[in-house]
Amino acid sequence: MPGGQSGWLRGLTGDQEIADLFSDQAQFESFARFESALISGLAEAGLIEPDAASELERRILEFTPDENRIAAAAVADGIPVPEYVRQLRQALSGPGSKLVHFGATSQDLTDTATVEALLRVIDITSARLDLLIADLDALQARGGNRTLKAITRMQEALDIQASGRIRIWRDPLKALSERVPSLRLETGKLQFGGAVGDLQALGGDAGTVAATIADKLGLDWPGSGWHTARRPLMACAGWMTELSAALGKIGQDVAMMALRGSADIGLSGGGSSSAMPHKQNPVTAERLVALAQFNASLTGAMHQAQIHEMERSGTAMTLEWMILPQICETTGNALLAGRELIGSITRIGHES
Amino acid sequence: MPGGQSGWLRGLTGDQEIADLFSDQAQFESFARFESALISGLAEAGLIEPDAASELERRILEFTPDENRIAAAAVADGIPVPEYVRQLRQALSGPGSKLVHFGATSQDLTDTATVEALLRVIDITSARLDLLIADLDALQARGGNRTLKAITRMQEALDIQASGRIRIWRDPLKALSERVPSLRLETGKLQFGGAVGDLQALGGDAGTVAATIADKLGLDWPGSGWHTARRPLMACAGWMTELSAALGKIGQDVAMMALRGSADIGLSGGGSSSAMPHKQNPVTAERLVALAQFNASLTGAMHQAQIHEMERSGTAMTLEWMILPQICETTGNALLAGRELIGSITRIGHES
Amino acid sequence: MPGGQSGWLRGLTGDQEIADLFSDQAQFESFARFESALISGLAEAGLIEPDAASELERRILEFTPDENRIAAAAVADGIPVPEYVRQLRQALSGPGSKLVHFGATSQDLTDTATVEALLRVIDITSARLDLLIADLDALQARGGNRTLKAITRMQEALDIQASGRIRIWRDPLKALSERVPSLRLETGKLQFGGAVGDLQALGGDAGTVAATIADKLGLDWPGSGWHTARRPLMACAGWMTELSAALGKIGQDVAMMALRGSADIGLSGGGSSSAMPHKQNPVTAERLVALAQFNASLTGAMHQAQIHEMERSGTAMTLEWMILPQICETTGNALLAGRELIGSITRIGHES
Amino acid sequence: MPGGQSGWLRGLTGDQEIADLFSDQAQFESFARFESALISGLAEAGLIEPDAASELERRILEFTPDENRIAAAAVADGIPVPEYVRQLRQALSGPGSKLVHFGATSQDLTDTATVEALLRVIDITSARLDLLIADLDALQARGGNRTLKAITRMQEALDIQASGRIRIWRDPLKALSERVPSLRLETGKLQFGGAVGDLQALGGDAGTVAATIADKLGLDWPGSGWHTARRPLMACAGWMTELSAALGKIGQDVAMMALRGSADIGLSGGGSSSAMPHKQNPVTAERLVALAQFNASLTGAMHQAQIHEMERSGTAMTLEWMILPQICETTGNALLAGRELIGSITRIGHES
Repeated sequence: MPGGQSGWLRGLTGDQEIADLFSDQAQFESFARFESALISGLAEAGLIEPDAASELERRILEFTPDENRIAAAAVADGIPVPEYVRQLRQALSGPGSKLVHFGATSQDLTDTATVEALLRVIDITSARLDLLIADLDALQARGGNRTLKAITRMQEALDIQASGRIRIWRDPLKALSERVPSLRLETGKLQFGGAVGDLQALGGDAGTVAATIADKLGLDWPGSGWHTARRPLMACAGWMTELSAALGKIGQDVAMMALRGSADIGLSGGGSSSAMPHKQNPVTAERLVALAQFNASLTGAMHQAQIHEMERSGTAMTLEWMILPQICETTGNALLAGRELIGSITRIGHES
Repeated sequence: MPGGQSGWLRGLTGDQEIADLFSDQAQFESFARFESALISGLAEAGLIEPDAASELERRILEFTPDENRIAAAAVADGIPVPEYVRQLRQALSGPGSKLVHFGATSQDLTDTATVEALLRVIDITSARLDLLIADLDALQARGGNRTLKAITRMQEALDIQASGRIRIWRDPLKALSERVPSLRLETGKLQFGGAVGDLQALGGDAGTVAATIADKLGLDWPGSGWHTARRPLMACAGWMTELSAALGKIGQDVAMMALRGSADIGLSGGGSSSAMPHKQNPVTAERLVALAQFNASLTGAMHQAQIHEMERSGTAMTLEWMILPQICETTGNALLAGRELIGSITRIGHES
Repeated sequence: MPGGQSGWLRGLTGDQEIADLFSDQAQFESFARFESALISGLAEAGLIEPDAASELERRILEFTPDENRIAAAAVADGIPVPEYVRQLRQALSGPGSKLVHFGATSQDLTDTATVEALLRVIDITSARLDLLIADLDALQARGGNRTLKAITRMQEALDIQASGRIRIWRDPLKALSERVPSLRLETGKLQFGGAVGDLQALGGDAGTVAATIADKLGLDWPGSGWHTARRPLMACAGWMTELSAALGKIGQDVAMMALRGSADIGLSGGGSSSAMPHKQNPVTAERLVALAQFNASLTGAMHQAQIHEMERSGTAMTLEWMILPQICETTGNALLAGRELIGSITRIGHES
Repeated sequence: MPGGQSGWLRGLTGDQEIADLFSDQAQFESFARFESALISGLAEAGLIEPDAASELERRILEFTPDENRIAAAAVADGIPVPEYVRQLRQALSGPGSKLVHFGATSQDLTDTATVEALLRVIDITSARLDLLIADLDALQARGGNRTLKAITRMQEALDIQASGRIRIWRDPLKALSERVPSLRLETGKLQFGGAVGDLQALGGDAGTVAATIADKLGLDWPGSGWHTARRPLMACAGWMTELSAALGKIGQDVAMMALRGSADIGLSGGGSSSAMPHKQNPVTAERLVALAQFNASLTGAMHQAQIHEMERSGTAMTLEWMILPQICETTGNALLAGRELIGSITRIGHES
């Protein structure tokens, strides 16, 4: 989590709305949806009576796990699912309850929970992104016809319209927005492979069960598990990091414009200095650059985590858990900062 | 260049066929194609007589620059184009020769040359990739029905068919192969923005000139320059690094299978040891892991290079020049190593 | 913070004892110590009466800031100090109270607070490290004379004594332990540079004031500020990451030994599987590898944050705040995991 | 190798003097020195007659290997040493020739060759560093008393003397220079562990042989091999990357000063633009930033390569071979660029 234990740093670099999507509660609710949908799939395959299945599904969705015991067990097990399933099984009884988790494996639940969280993150970030694009359109409308000195290789080049610079801020954001539908498809994959990835426990019923789970969860069933092939996660990490880089570019530009002075830009607000009361620092612009660089490092770390050995890698999974939520929070925060920054521009360029 | 100055290391980790695509000669030929196509575009816009244009284009394509003088000037200029253009202008005369490079800027040439090189790299790597997929299909045919012990979290799990492990090697490669057409579209963009990115020198003729250049070079004209918005490069870097990661996963698995012994895999060849003549080391498998990790770091570096400040960043461009050819060579070498490795598998799994 | 908002993941990868050293409360207590020591220094230089100074110091140390208002202001200011100082000034009155923060700047407080936290982290981690070395000595005593198959390049090589492998685990840890005294010296530097790094507001009194602050805080005064020269932080980040890598190597080895089977190692505990009750996964060993790789990425990010432009970089500071606490927590957690892992070894190697 | 196959890019970002230290020829000469010193050690231990040893040593040092055959074999063996030793053994005959390479392993030769190259790189870079510090002293002498506007968080702060900014450029360089003696000690370690790291083939003679080799090569014998404990390499990588970051900071500052204009700095030379003849781009300053960021990524990659599994990791060694020479070249080039840049400053600050 960007910002760690420090409240002020979390306020500056974190994103609570997004962090909540990766909370214990959110993840365990995903687990429940998965286990419930699995029962539905087993019923579809004729392994449980429909009525017993409905009853089980209801009770699974109502089940409240003991988070503290799961946290303790997760250290021993390296993953929270075994204890979650132990608790769930203990809480259930009656016809079919022996079939809870049948055919599934821990990673099926954690990966699917991650996918569900990422889809929500995409919802949130793409909505903010579209608002930011609208902010830039408004800036374009009110200041695009003013004049700026273009800067190439850190030197004044020629005069341009402010619209030119606003365009190079907006174009990559618009392109990222247009990639959202395909991103949702690439990321929204049900994970379901069972103990060793081949759904062998379900035999000929595997396809039916998988399709039912996917349908219930509103995810795509890619035809087989992807325990070691992580494109759904990488597509999302890549998109977010390109997005935070596009925002970092705006931050870098605004910081340099603020350095050059009032012929380039006017900003309201601005950070105060403890030592120099006259200063108004472009701190939100600086923050955007820091967030972009942080995400660049995290996505590099995601690439490092892409070698999942054999049928399941505890090491690589653990890395992904540590990295992905931070990429999401960082991107979410950057979007908020980007909107703040554009909104604080009181003047861009000068009269030509 | 992976492998540096050392011949043996280049043999082990480099890829000469791909390195040649980034050689001075290859780049300067790209420059010539760009400058020639630009003349064609200026003619289309009525700025040069068609006959004069044809003559100029011919002479541009025939021009041989002095590479040593360009190398020397590139240190002073931070980019090779100004000296290339000086030499080219000096070599030309007659009607229209004053219009050489008119409306263009150095980065238009270097970026377009990079795009041309990357498209060739995609040709080479995707062809090798398809051969590797065929190699895996052949392995599937001859050994897929044998038995392996699945390994999850570094422990024996259940028996699987060898086909299961071969599938998790092949699936991501197949998916990467299927992304090639869209990758070509994302990467194959003409760069053309002129001095400050807005093609202002060409006024109303900009669209005509740009479309003509793109047509001549077989590239897509995205409607504006992308001096600071680097998706065409990032799409390619991402694809290559995901590809080398998928190969690294195969390498990691084979190395672990070799560690577990002959019930898992038999390999022909294998590295000799200077101290222990009895050993046959799975060095190609190890190499694949190293190449994957190297590319992961380089792609992290590409993400770091994504903040191109203002209208043109010399810093970020220089970083991209240093990184991208290495990603390409590393990926190319990994594909060769992957084919070697699969070809060296004499036996996978055991009779069930 | 490794582990983000999720409780189970924090348990698995975080370290609350270390996280607390970077909490708001811990940082604001550091701020108070700094501001108090500064008053002492100003008194030493004759700028405040000794009695007034004592009274002020006492009240500064007793002051409790409003953390929520600081968190809110930190978003606007990009740093928590201006609001902290505003609140502190408001809470004080009487002789000398106008001199609170005189000559200092925000970064002096945040950097010194970071240094104080890092020194405590070094205390904690080096104590754990020495216990881990003792654990390895105990393992050596009980199993060192047994026999292992050495593995080079993923192949069986020759027989070795288990003591050989334990030695290659222990040697780098011992070397890291021996570096602690010099690390404390490199990291334990007072930050004090004032508004623009040259302590100009204090004129000829700067040396006296600085030496007094350093003395009060038990830090070394390097003779000038280091707002942009970050060796004190890099020395610490480097040491921690080399430490977590040394632990990751142990984890990797144990995971591979567990894969090879009982002739190599016996482990008690071990993670349970939700799908395969017979398994005992070496999850702590895997965790150590993940933590090492995570820290490697974070230290790479610290290197990226080393270009602090001009007299003060808000961007680079923000990055450091985001990265350093995570490196510390990750290292702390890895040490705990390392001790767990060594303690869980019931048997190493076999009778020769 | 930074700059790959392209001549102009190598001129811009590479360093031929340093690249040559990692050439085949340089490495094979190191191999010969090692094998010759080993014979001397075996003689010291009484395993070869002194006269036979002298004759063998002479012939080993005179031996010229076939580089092409080594390059070809290195692909199969994953390391060049087995073929080098095969050729060497074939070239030798007579008393004692059977003992060539006795007790040693391939990694002993490659690591020791790397250490020898790194010590030479430290010689070259530290000499350049001291010249650069002198350049800064000269700049201090001629311009230190002029006035600059301090810039904190991208905003004008207060006036400072130019000496203040020159000091924050020079201080970290001076500190890095002062670390050179300890760096030489940390890096200058003989690698000698034999087949599985315990020198078992040499029995009780191991210490004598090792001490003799170290003495002959002018290296320190740390008492055991360090096949998997890579502090000698990491110390060097860390120092170089901190050095290039210190240079990158100077580059960043100068580029920003050039952006701010002539009240801050005057530069002679400067890059020409193909499109805007009036421009003089601070391309050397930009280059320094790019080199620093590149090295940051490479050192992150070195940290990733620090998990050497079991008694020898082919994967991690290969990564180190790919990364370290590039870090050295990048640092060497940055020092040359730094001197160019400081030498090109015609004016700093303004009259107060």
